[in-house]
Amino acid sequence: MEVTGNIRQLIERLKQGDSSALARSITLLEEGSLDLPSVDALLGASGSSVTIGVTGPPGAGKSSLIDWLIKHMRNAGEMVGVLATDPSSPFTGGAILGDRIRMQHHFLDDRVFIRSLGSRGAQGGISRITRDAAHLMRTAGYRYIILETVGVGQTELDIMNLADTVLVVLVPESGDVMQAMKAGLMEIADIFIVNKADREGAKQMVNALTFITETREPGRDEWEVPILLTNGLDGTGTMEVFQTIQQHSVFLGSHRQAALLLNKRRHGLKQLILEQVSVRIEDLLTNALADRYRAELSDPSVSLYSIFNRIMKDKDFTGRLSR
Amino acid sequence: MEVTGNIRQLIERLKQGDSSALARSITLLEEGSLDLPSVDALLGASGSSVTIGVTGPPGAGKSSLIDWLIKHMRNAGEMVGVLATDPSSPFTGGAILGDRIRMQHHFLDDRVFIRSLGSRGAQGGISRITRDAAHLMRTAGYRYIILETVGVGQTELDIMNLADTVLVVLVPESGDVMQAMKAGLMEIADIFIVNKADREGAKQMVNALTFITETREPGRDEWEVPILLTNGLDGTGTMEVFQTIQQHSVFLGSHRQAALLLNKRRHGLKQLILEQVSVRIEDLLTNALADRYRAELSDPSVSLYSIFNRIMKDKDFTGRLSR
Repeated sequence: MEVTGNIRQLIERLKQGDSSALARSITLLEEGSLDLPSVDALLGASGSSVTIGVTGPPGAGKSSLIDWLIKHMRNAGEMVGVLATDPSSPFTGGAILGDRIRMQHHFLDDRVFIRSLGSRGAQGGISRITRDAAHLMRTAGYRYIILETVGVGQTELDIMNLADTVLVVLVPESGDVMQAMKAGLMEIADIFIVNKADREGAKQMVNALTFITETREPGRDEWEVPILLTNGLDGTGTMEVFQTIQQHSVFLGSHRQAALLLNKRRHGLKQLILEQVSVRIEDLLTNALADRYRAELSDPSVSLYSIFNRIMKDKDFTGRLSR
Repeated sequence: MEVTGNIRQLIERLKQGDSSALARSITLLEEGSLDLPSVDALLGASGSSVTIGVTGPPGAGKSSLIDWLIKHMRNAGEMVGVLATDPSSPFTGGAILGDRIRMQHHFLDDRVFIRSLGSRGAQGGISRITRDAAHLMRTAGYRYIILETVGVGQTELDIMNLADTVLVVLVPESGDVMQAMKAGLMEIADIFIVNKADREGAKQMVNALTFITETREPGRDEWEVPILLTNGLDGTGTMEVFQTIQQHSVFLGSHRQAALLLNKRRHGLKQLILEQVSVRIEDLLTNALADRYRAELSDPSVSLYSIFNRIMKDKDFTGRLSR
């Protein structure tokens, strides 16, 4: 992708922390008009940042928790960015919008940047946009980057995989723990939050979570997953959440977590390569090699698996794939 | 993947329409122990089949509609397979299970095969499993293959993309049309179903859908998307749905739809290639070329985009990628 003078100017402003340049850049990402590998040299080294994933079922109080975290982070003098992904669930669209509105009292604070990312129309999927937008935030000097998802589906797990620290927010309601387990949230949690902790059943939920965290696969890491109680209405317990996030950052920075970081970044690199290869395959199948495979592709009695077997032995295809 | 004698036997039984062999094969797919390209020659040509996608919001009555369709298809003497995907939404798990139970009165009919595919633990994602399971059903002689998803998220759209004919099921409730639009269901519908058509607001919903279908992007195809009214309780209108599915099949078989088929199969082939390339990249980054990139991958101050730029110029990597 060609890097125009406009893009250069935009990135210059972005690096100075200009939030309108950040907003514009994210729009360009969504439109597929900004390609981060092409502008990596312009972006330069990004500042040190902490990326926090916040997930859990709808209604668990993720947004009010984030609201409190923003307050604590701002009180600590840090810039905060929030990327909220509509879980492509159209049927919860209303609630999500409500959450966004609830966060609006940070609207006038230009060191807080809140953005909802839609998945429809996004080039390359919502987790790619989230990854690239978070990198732009880092470049713009945001110290804390919060990624909010509803805890359902592979896309949401992919987004949580971008975070350094994953908060799973639950409320003391029957079935919630079971459902979170099914969604794979137990494995990815670095911190559990039991919100609305004044409700009946909070203690039982903490007991259940304690049991589960103690019986997680051993050897994953040496971080003991804390279970914190909060109340989104008055902020009780939310300062402790912020402190625990900081402790987890220190933990991650320690030497023995190098393997974890390596794995995470290897996974990220693989994604980048796959995105590129995907574009090339598309191009080969619709342009350069289209004629060669058209007859078989047009004949539904030929299985795709057999065409696949042929094309993977086609030196012309495999040679061009990697060029 | 090595093809063992057991797999050969299983496929022989599958080709004879043995439903327990089908069930076992799908389990092997889910476990990642059966690779369709490797056994394509054994599977041979599959029978002609019609794949029907059924999607829509929770509670729209998808499962009771499918129930009626199964009845009509069985009365026509055809074998029917249903693949229902838990939308990886743990928070609707209960409702989905209920739907499965409602379909159980086909349990004793061995020419009806119903299977719920879970996304957790599935190797390569739920849309891949669905695609391969549908191919196995075709091989086993199933004439109609019904794919059911809740209409949310990219994964569900991917699954609907596997279908020849997509039914979008809605109920006359305020907001449903708007939400379905946001989810991208309008673009993929070949047939709209307004279920619970005795409810207030059914007429208005039909009017709204008529307006929307008439203003869809022109040139997509020449099929006029019908809007059918049904009642899942007594089956009113469901025979017409079955007939319309058959009309759509005839339409798809006509010459001018060749381009549509070509595009669809090209997309499927691309997916197969990407799955394979993904495995290779993983292997190169964790084995053959791990040492070369370890230092940069371990250093969080080096951006992934810059490593990506380097590796795509590394002849050793690109050469091995395609081998």
